[in-house]
Amino acid sequence: MAKYSFGVDVGGTTIKMGFFDEAGNVLEKWEIPTRTENGGVNVLPDIAKAVEDKLSEKAIEKSQVIGVGIGVPGPVDAKGIVHKCVNLGWGVFNLNEELEKLLGIPTRSGNDANVAALGEMWKGGGQGYESIVMVTLGTGVGGGIIMDGEILTGAKGAAGEIGHIHVDDGETEVCGCGNKGCLEQYASATGVVRLANRILAKNTKPTGLVAGQCSAKDVWDAVKAGDEAALEIAEQFGEYLGKGLASVACVINPEAFVIGGGVSKAGDVLLDYIRKNYTPYVFHASRDVQFTLATLGNDAGIYGAAKLVVDSVTA
Amino acid sequence: MAKYSFGVDVGGTTIKMGFFDEAGNVLEKWEIPTRTENGGVNVLPDIAKAVEDKLSEKAIEKSQVIGVGIGVPGPVDAKGIVHKCVNLGWGVFNLNEELEKLLGIPTRSGNDANVAALGEMWKGGGQGYESIVMVTLGTGVGGGIIMDGEILTGAKGAAGEIGHIHVDDGETEVCGCGNKGCLEQYASATGVVRLANRILAKNTKPTGLVAGQCSAKDVWDAVKAGDEAALEIAEQFGEYLGKGLASVACVINPEAFVIGGGVSKAGDVLLDYIRKNYTPYVFHASRDVQFTLATLGNDAGIYGAAKLVVDSVTA
Repeated sequence: MAKYSFGVDVGGTTIKMGFFDEAGNVLEKWEIPTRTENGGVNVLPDIAKAVEDKLSEKAIEKSQVIGVGIGVPGPVDAKGIVHKCVNLGWGVFNLNEELEKLLGIPTRSGNDANVAALGEMWKGGGQGYESIVMVTLGTGVGGGIIMDGEILTGAKGAAGEIGHIHVDDGETEVCGCGNKGCLEQYASATGVVRLANRILAKNTKPTGLVAGQCSAKDVWDAVKAGDEAALEIAEQFGEYLGKGLASVACVINPEAFVIGGGVSKAGDVLLDYIRKNYTPYVFHASRDVQFTLATLGNDAGIYGAAKLVVDSVTA
Repeated sequence: MAKYSFGVDVGGTTIKMGFFDEAGNVLEKWEIPTRTENGGVNVLPDIAKAVEDKLSEKAIEKSQVIGVGIGVPGPVDAKGIVHKCVNLGWGVFNLNEELEKLLGIPTRSGNDANVAALGEMWKGGGQGYESIVMVTLGTGVGGGIIMDGEILTGAKGAAGEIGHIHVDDGETEVCGCGNKGCLEQYASATGVVRLANRILAKNTKPTGLVAGQCSAKDVWDAVKAGDEAALEIAEQFGEYLGKGLASVACVINPEAFVIGGGVSKAGDVLLDYIRKNYTPYVFHASRDVQFTLATLGNDAGIYGAAKLVVDSVTA
């Protein structure tokens, strides 16, 4: 009986590979480079080869593999059709069919943010919940939505773009998306730095932070040390993110928000600022939504990809 | 073979009943009063009697009925468990099981806003789409979400509360929900009147509208007549609603917004103001989302309730 699965997380420079047993334990993980040249034509053959090589090395038959799950950096609809991955040079095609053709193993695919959310729900900070929103506070602000155990892809695979919820009418600078006042402009790692520079430019309180010379990590370290200017930055960060997540909760009423990405390394203090500022903005029915920290880090994608296979191939 | 269904829409004062054929044509519709006394203990028996009476009248056997669908004014989860309907005096119980016990006919239930959305998708303004948000601009602002043909209920049946998305940081008056700056405060029928009164109080443009004496209908009639103050009110209304719906689209990426409720009787001009103000706030992947008007009016609920049965009992 089939009992192994592969979880693959395709990034713009590296492809993360995971080899899992049926209980969802990762037996081995490794990386291969992402060859994006020529429209990314080598990406799937490289993944297929990595899978074949691992099976040979372990002397495991293909019939013992439930499937290969794969997360990619672009919109993927429920049928496995990729609608362009700019970072990989990919156009529109059926990823599941293509990889199955190469490997002869059932394949399931999804958008990387959604797949990471599934991973956190299965084995990370979202364990015990069925309906979560994973919020990734990294270079940008990404979102992955799981409702009743299933990924919510949206009509064109663009659900969960919560970094572009409008949260400030007064913003004058332009977001990467072309709009103004997007959540990402305040709650991403670069957003925290922007907020810090704005506040420090007018600051009169005692502080160890210097405008133009602090990272998001510096800000949160200072928050933990009780730095007064840093506390003000954290408060504003919490207000923007709390307000944005309250809107998300009004729309889909999840059980929990799982907060991940580089900024989330600040830990529980981050959740305190979000929670405190979320409550005044949210509809009462979603007031008791939980906030937790993601725990899988960069492995969330391979876990979620493996879970895609476990859920759908064996269903 | 079973070929008929009943669609029931339970309101605080009236229960709307619809008797449908298998193609979704309503063969007959009628109303019975909602008896809310004694914790609403009579509501389900009254519905059961209305169904039995109609079947006797038509000399139709229960075996020819696919099922009874029912929409209620409160949160209902995917298992048919009602989590309190304040207007009916109901607590927490399994509505499907209770009505099935009384009638011996399969029952399916849902929140009334969600069920109305399903109705509009099946036979109304949302035809041809699989993923829609129905926005009801009435006394309040309600929302019903259908993704891939299925109702999105949320973890506690509270998804689609889009009237309580925060859209104005500067609001000083309190919304019915206790928060400040909710979409409902500007885009409901009473919201339009509030906006009108605020603008008219400061107005210096020529206008036929009088502060404190105009209804939402008066405002939209004046918009169509080119009244300058009315155009300003419409612009603000569109900005609030466009901004709010842009947030909704960032979260779930629907194919279309179907606009219903009393305010939507203003017609296409309403859509123009929403669309124009939606675009600057939305993420590019959701920029081409369609806006349509609801067409079923107060019958959306009975259509959607019948569709609940057609979808799930025969599935």
